[in-house]
Amino acid sequence: MRSRADGTPGRVLLATLAEPGAEIVLPDDESHYVTRVCRARPGETLTATDGRGGVARLRLLETRAAARARVEEVRREARGREAWLLCGAPEGPRADWLVEKLAELGVARLLPVDTARARWQGAHARPDRLRRVAEAGLRQSRRAWLLGIETVAGLDAALAGLPAGGSRWLADPDGIRPRGAASERVCVGAVGPAEGFTTAERASLEACGFAAMSLADGRLRCETAAIAWASWWALGA
Amino acid sequence: MRSRADGTPGRVLLATLAEPGAEIVLPDDESHYVTRVCRARPGETLTATDGRGGVARLRLLETRAAARARVEEVRREARGREAWLLCGAPEGPRADWLVEKLAELGVARLLPVDTARARWQGAHARPDRLRRVAEAGLRQSRRAWLLGIETVAGLDAALAGLPAGGSRWLADPDGIRPRGAASERVCVGAVGPAEGFTTAERASLEACGFAAMSLADGRLRCETAAIAWASWWALGA
Repeated sequence: MRSRADGTPGRVLLATLAEPGAEIVLPDDESHYVTRVCRARPGETLTATDGRGGVARLRLLETRAAARARVEEVRREARGREAWLLCGAPEGPRADWLVEKLAELGVARLLPVDTARARWQGAHARPDRLRRVAEAGLRQSRRAWLLGIETVAGLDAALAGLPAGGSRWLADPDGIRPRGAASERVCVGAVGPAEGFTTAERASLEACGFAAMSLADGRLRCETAAIAWASWWALGA
Repeated sequence: MRSRADGTPGRVLLATLAEPGAEIVLPDDESHYVTRVCRARPGETLTATDGRGGVARLRLLETRAAARARVEEVRREARGREAWLLCGAPEGPRADWLVEKLAELGVARLLPVDTARARWQGAHARPDRLRRVAEAGLRQSRRAWLLGIETVAGLDAALAGLPAGGSRWLADPDGIRPRGAASERVCVGAVGPAEGFTTAERASLEACGFAAMSLADGRLRCETAAIAWASWWALGA
């Protein structure tokens, strides 16, 4: 299975990776990708992940009907630095882009928050749809950890669920420009919806240790700020 | 004219700004935006730009038919640091996103390049369409300088047109992580198409002083790498 770019195998996503030596049949989606999109042939190897740190090397045995493969090796990747992003609702279909880019950039968790001015809603905010988008981002970026997407919650509930410690940043055109890279084990970003956080919501964030951070010298859309923040975080690796 | 977020006026784009004291009729698109989308009323002020550093304060006089306004003040913003991005073709509609985000982040120039493996084509790569997307990004981010989009060219022609000096970066998962921010007056990024640059194209870039720069610990799509690079550049302001 070759990606078009460089002949390196892509990555398929499996619910579980089985044990070395086991023979598995790939699920329909992954089978289609391997046999039709990548046109892989029996004998080729490919990499699979469970999206929870497990990575397996598979050898393709059969590609005519459903793809069948043998698990040759399984290893586990430790979780490194983590970025969590608490994010207000972007406008409509922009949620797809937000999720795809966060997944590509390696963000660990997205916490969609409903705020006083905006709610996550519509087809583009459905958890199953967003999960599929995150899975595509994982395949693309060849990661071992799938972007986790939390259930939509209110701001207070989301704040209560954050891990202790680490650094916390609120995207804000009037904030400070960060000095250096994100090096903490957990780094949490907060981005308001298109309509912005209210003063009370900002106060809640500040009370929880969020510091205002400017990402550019202009005003960014919700999803642009989120992707710019994740890009900053990704550079800290 | 209020944006929904914070009561700050949005920004309209005019071909020319006229002189202080002049009365102008806004073009149809801008008139619609001002009177229908923002529901501005006579007596309110709004900010206009020509996308070439000019910024004008306008006072609305009439909003029932085409919006009419008086120019109250005109100033010019100096061009600061500039980011230029030489970019291979993203897949289909991703070009729209690429352009919108580059415009929001304040990139000065996009140089679309046709490479051995991919060409800019289809409706999403039409110059007039991309320009409209860039204009929307300018309004959103309230900038005085419009993202300039060059005609699609081959790599050698694009390289020949770059300004001398500054720093030059090639997005590459195997490159180095940059130390610090982009502080040069002109900073040029190069991002390959979805299919990647060929070895010969990489050699041309390296001969022109492009250094390989890693933006994340996974592989990024063309437009994701471009936006991540622009986000890194934007933090250097």
